[in-house]
Amino acid sequence: MDEKYMGQALALAQYAKGRTSPNPMVGAVIVRDGRVVGEGWHRKAGTPHAEINALQQAGDLAYDASIYVTLEPCSHHGRTGPCVEALIAAGIKKVIIAMTDPNPLVAGQGISRLREAGIEVVEGVLAKEAAKLNETFIKWISTKKPFVLLKSAMSLDGKIASYTGHSKWITGAESRIYVHQLRDTYDAILVGIGTVLADNPTLTTRLTYQGKNPIRVVVDSMARTPIHSNVVTDGLARTMIAVTDKAPQEKIDTLRACGVEVIECEKTTAGVNLSHLFNILGEQQITSILIEGGAAINASVLEDNLVDKINWFIAPKIVGGADAPGPVGGKGIADVNDAKGFEDIHMESIGKDILISAYLRNREGRDVYRTCGRIR
Amino acid sequence: MDEKYMGQALALAQYAKGRTSPNPMVGAVIVRDGRVVGEGWHRKAGTPHAEINALQQAGDLAYDASIYVTLEPCSHHGRTGPCVEALIAAGIKKVIIAMTDPNPLVAGQGISRLREAGIEVVEGVLAKEAAKLNETFIKWISTKKPFVLLKSAMSLDGKIASYTGHSKWITGAESRIYVHQLRDTYDAILVGIGTVLADNPTLTTRLTYQGKNPIRVVVDSMARTPIHSNVVTDGLARTMIAVTDKAPQEKIDTLRACGVEVIECEKTTAGVNLSHLFNILGEQQITSILIEGGAAINASVLEDNLVDKINWFIAPKIVGGADAPGPVGGKGIADVNDAKGFEDIHMESIGKDILISAYLRNREGRDVYRTCGRIR
Repeated sequence: MDEKYMGQALALAQYAKGRTSPNPMVGAVIVRDGRVVGEGWHRKAGTPHAEINALQQAGDLAYDASIYVTLEPCSHHGRTGPCVEALIAAGIKKVIIAMTDPNPLVAGQGISRLREAGIEVVEGVLAKEAAKLNETFIKWISTKKPFVLLKSAMSLDGKIASYTGHSKWITGAESRIYVHQLRDTYDAILVGIGTVLADNPTLTTRLTYQGKNPIRVVVDSMARTPIHSNVVTDGLARTMIAVTDKAPQEKIDTLRACGVEVIECEKTTAGVNLSHLFNILGEQQITSILIEGGAAINASVLEDNLVDKINWFIAPKIVGGADAPGPVGGKGIADVNDAKGFEDIHMESIGKDILISAYLRNREGRDVYRTCGRIR
Repeated sequence: MDEKYMGQALALAQYAKGRTSPNPMVGAVIVRDGRVVGEGWHRKAGTPHAEINALQQAGDLAYDASIYVTLEPCSHHGRTGPCVEALIAAGIKKVIIAMTDPNPLVAGQGISRLREAGIEVVEGVLAKEAAKLNETFIKWISTKKPFVLLKSAMSLDGKIASYTGHSKWITGAESRIYVHQLRDTYDAILVGIGTVLADNPTLTTRLTYQGKNPIRVVVDSMARTPIHSNVVTDGLARTMIAVTDKAPQEKIDTLRACGVEVIECEKTTAGVNLSHLFNILGEQQITSILIEGGAAINASVLEDNLVDKINWFIAPKIVGGADAPGPVGGKGIADVNDAKGFEDIHMESIGKDILISAYLRNREGRDVYRTCGRIR
């Protein structure tokens, strides 16, 4: 029965997918005498938490009731006041929690406060599902670095384009819609300057329903982004251009005058130090990044262990060609036993394509995810 | 109930997997008054058919009984006499058949003869499963060409080796065992001369139980196979070397003197005309070929539409490298919309790897498979 109500709370939380950053998605269900008397979810950062919304709906019926909440209630005074105090004040008898607060510095404090007030607390109900739902938030809150999803789309024989460079379309319409759904839920989308110069993309979310456009980040060490390119001129979303000190100051000034943000990053031999860039983006409360880069960017983020998860679309077709490009360039590793390994592999059909999702084996923040998600 | 007994007959048929070529696998179950009284399967070409083995076990109990048989019983005088006459003589009352004879010239004759004799015949029970079990036989009997399975193993980013050529091992132990199981069931294994020169493989079946070694076919237009290579000297299986008229006669004579068979094939600009080779192999009752080629052979057979099925092992790791080789070489197609398409896609986990199985969309013999398998 606990799992039924928690499942309902998780479903509520998801209504706000892509809308709560830098906060997590949270859902809450209040149950009294076997009847749901209040439902709530966190809709947007700066607005009331899920518990408060549910308490409001329940009104007096919250007294002596149980609340199912997908994340440990907060005990600190944030923008909306501590939820634990509201729960105590409403006379809640029992709190059932999916996962603890993933911030190692505060985890468990909400639970302690509730217990001190004589409220029964049950932890770990659908913990794994709750942690999965907020996987991007968990990484960011525990490391202050964004969760990075690397997306690629290739043929069965590992080609992202033919030898002529033709690539429209390797994958089917369903896969491309799925990618727009990803853009809708990620804080930022990142590409290399090569993609901007070749395709002049808008990098916006195009869905039949109103999507949210991610912040556009262009890795462009020399500030070569043309001022007439869509990401500069269309005004559809914030654009950030990551440069190094090799970029001419004049170009930087021109881009800034056009309204885009220019981030000056440390450099490596390859160009922008992506680890430094991601730290800066994390400080700016960008909790998640979707990388839709080409082979060069993909190779860089993998080499630097900056990837958390991959979404790999594989179309059931063979393009062929010894010279046709693959999804990951660079030099690569020499001994295949040193290849980057992935875990928690999941496969599914997306239209006629196959989507493989997996997590980098040695990713940062993995332990926090496992702890608060109680996958020990 | 029909499906239960037919499932049992299919399970019996599979006992002889890899042992019946050029015949199909067939299983039979005789049921009288709700009790199984006879079981049989075809064990090896030249030995009694499944029905005969089942009748023998049932003895007098076959009278007035029903028989479940995975393939339409034969009505022609082959090496073992027509099964329909034996069923009639034994007093069988009802015959339940999974699939009709896939040879378009004889299909239905067994069924007609049974009905003429007053026996009730039910067709199409687990037809799809039966057709799948004998997919290699169905291709060969209806086209006289071997069924061709293209096997490859690559990393998630489509690499079959690192930029240095290192490839041991991309996939895990479970996948490699699976490949030996394939060798155990296919009539022949085919590689290019490049593989022989680089790896000096034995191409044998190495399993903990006694496996059957496939016939080894080396595509070697110039007859460059070294006479000290394992496929020439080890005597573990027949070896066939496919050459063109560009091969020096002296080399051909030497190879033949070493005990290997040399097949002189027509040539194309790329070397051996593989279509011609496969026709020759089909005439020699080689019903199925497992291709474990490199990028060049893989590209050739795909370009020439000679592939029926692919088994694609994908290891959950990323090797990277713009210069690391992929599974399919050649020039490739220019427009990705012209890519070779696959259908009936199936994915499964093999250890930590992913195995994608699929069928070439426009393969030869597809219609016969669908007809006798009743997947209309």
